[in-house]
Amino acid sequence: MINEKYLERLSKQLGQCNIDAMIIGPSNDLEYITGFLSHEDERFQGLFLLRDGKYFYISPKLNAEEIEHIMGQNTKIYPWDDGEGFANTVRDALSDHNLSGKRIAINSGIRGADLLDMAEIFKGELINGVQIIEDSRVIKTTEEVNHLKKAGQMADEVMEELTTFIKPGMKEKDIKKRIEELFLKKGSTIAFNPIVASGTNSSKPHYNKDDRIIQEKDIIILDLGCRYNGCCSDISRTFFIGEATEEEKQIYQIILRANQAGKDAVKEGVTAEYIDQQARNIINNEGYGNYFFNRVGHGIGFSVHEAPYIRQGNGQVIKKGMAFSIEPGIYLPGKFGIRVEDIIVVGENGPEVMNNFERNIIII
Amino acid sequence: MINEKYLERLSKQLGQCNIDAMIIGPSNDLEYITGFLSHEDERFQGLFLLRDGKYFYISPKLNAEEIEHIMGQNTKIYPWDDGEGFANTVRDALSDHNLSGKRIAINSGIRGADLLDMAEIFKGELINGVQIIEDSRVIKTTEEVNHLKKAGQMADEVMEELTTFIKPGMKEKDIKKRIEELFLKKGSTIAFNPIVASGTNSSKPHYNKDDRIIQEKDIIILDLGCRYNGCCSDISRTFFIGEATEEEKQIYQIILRANQAGKDAVKEGVTAEYIDQQARNIINNEGYGNYFFNRVGHGIGFSVHEAPYIRQGNGQVIKKGMAFSIEPGIYLPGKFGIRVEDIIVVGENGPEVMNNFERNIIII
Repeated sequence: MINEKYLERLSKQLGQCNIDAMIIGPSNDLEYITGFLSHEDERFQGLFLLRDGKYFYISPKLNAEEIEHIMGQNTKIYPWDDGEGFANTVRDALSDHNLSGKRIAINSGIRGADLLDMAEIFKGELINGVQIIEDSRVIKTTEEVNHLKKAGQMADEVMEELTTFIKPGMKEKDIKKRIEELFLKKGSTIAFNPIVASGTNSSKPHYNKDDRIIQEKDIIILDLGCRYNGCCSDISRTFFIGEATEEEKQIYQIILRANQAGKDAVKEGVTAEYIDQQARNIINNEGYGNYFFNRVGHGIGFSVHEAPYIRQGNGQVIKKGMAFSIEPGIYLPGKFGIRVEDIIVVGENGPEVMNNFERNIIII
Repeated sequence: MINEKYLERLSKQLGQCNIDAMIIGPSNDLEYITGFLSHEDERFQGLFLLRDGKYFYISPKLNAEEIEHIMGQNTKIYPWDDGEGFANTVRDALSDHNLSGKRIAINSGIRGADLLDMAEIFKGELINGVQIIEDSRVIKTTEEVNHLKKAGQMADEVMEELTTFIKPGMKEKDIKKRIEELFLKKGSTIAFNPIVASGTNSSKPHYNKDDRIIQEKDIIILDLGCRYNGCCSDISRTFFIGEATEEEKQIYQIILRANQAGKDAVKEGVTAEYIDQQARNIINNEGYGNYFFNRVGHGIGFSVHEAPYIRQGNGQVIKKGMAFSIEPGIYLPGKFGIRVEDIIVVGENGPEVMNNFERNIIII
């Protein structure tokens, strides 16, 4: 069912940005609005939202019944045929709604290739609307914060269960599989493909090959989260098998201090880049600045990654109701990496951390 | 490791199309070329292939070590920083390779939002390159055909096992889970999220909610396939629980004839639209033309959907080595749907079907 209240808010934001319409292709955004999670397919489709609050959907013909079923009969559907392609259908729909020559934003679900085809028939202005749509969900309701907390608690519990599950001899992918099973058992689903990066793989923040066998004295970064009632969790911890070296222990303490400094910096009115800098300073001051090569955090909600992005150069002001990660890391190429990640919410009574799993060094 | 031989071929095709470079973002195309399957992430990245065969990679800094590890040290990497964004890095890379103002194609892995940001710094021409890159893999080698056959055989076996597994009382998602397990056990992975559409859900070709409970006298469309050694299978069958009605039986026979007519039409030198029409005619002649609202088939190889698309309006000429599906269906909204899908390859000794699972009506 269409989330009419949210669409009304988003359409007002379009008006404020002087944008005439937004196209929302298959993505978390579309799922948030409609509950519709599209089967993987290369065919163009999307919800067109107008600044006056009206909307329609352009759909491949073979999805039209499903779209109507999910979105309700109030949703005007423009079906297009495989034999003809989407160009004429889009042209007709734009003309019906007087959108020819206007300013249209797109979300992250629209493929560049389709945009190029569309640009041939649409002579107006096309705009990157990712920030606009993410900002429209950036302030979480009390109910959403409760769901984020519950999702965080489930992630804490999974981390706890992994402390006794992980043993030398198993593959990284065995751990990943276990994470999925544990979340399913708790009544949630994984919010993203978990990261299990052991040994030298831990220096690659987004490692996902999962074929290494866990060894004695390994270091393992675990980065996992679930979605519960539409709200995501995301936690990273670094485990050690048997023991940690002095160097590992020393870097772990730097990361822990950076994680704390980031969280300590969170309050209403500061900027995203200010928080980034407070965590980053700890790492820079210890001489490891070159080995922390990503942002300190990202917003979280219905999507695992959304605004506000806690990064240098982002002057977005932190407000009550925002939720985001603080995840400093040090990654020594070819050696190892360490990351400690928490989700923090700017709550009614000040900042509140959504995860409570042990943060001190964990030797299993 | 980079597939240098393929890149050389693709770069020559760029030259023939008078295109100066192609950007290949995270996608099956990129995985085919490099073996790199990116962790889900909103950060822009992609391989830039030049018409002279040179290439480089634009990567978020946090992926750079991994990219170098996977693609080898011959790949020039341009890392960009979360704090700065990708614009300057892309500008520098384009300038280093004299691409400013030139013609650049993109594949399906480039997001529209990133393309719009890129268009602000790149003053040349951007082109939809999906057809070009898909055509570069459209002729399968003998080895690939063997893998397609093996993948098809695995899908046949899974269908066979489902005939005894499916029982009233289980949920659609239980069947889906079983399909995944069966392919894993055989040493392959699912090529796409399987479709299990029972009862009235079967009239929605891409149904994927999976929450219905299987009933006595149900009709169930099963659409599944695996990837084996980089080659995909894709088969659909329609099962009946206990019995089929006269109407169901009658429509099943039409679909079976349409499936056969499509396969019979396959030979070197005909066009994709000709094959589509031969299958479609059977359905049209029986008066069900309005209930078959999609193309007859799609190419298959490393991707489940790729060129050649067997659809009206596609004059692409069928050649030896092409592989594609023939999947006519009749979908009666609110009632039921029936589909029978096979993969066919234009082999050395004529067309050869990759699936051999029973095609006649299956009552379980």
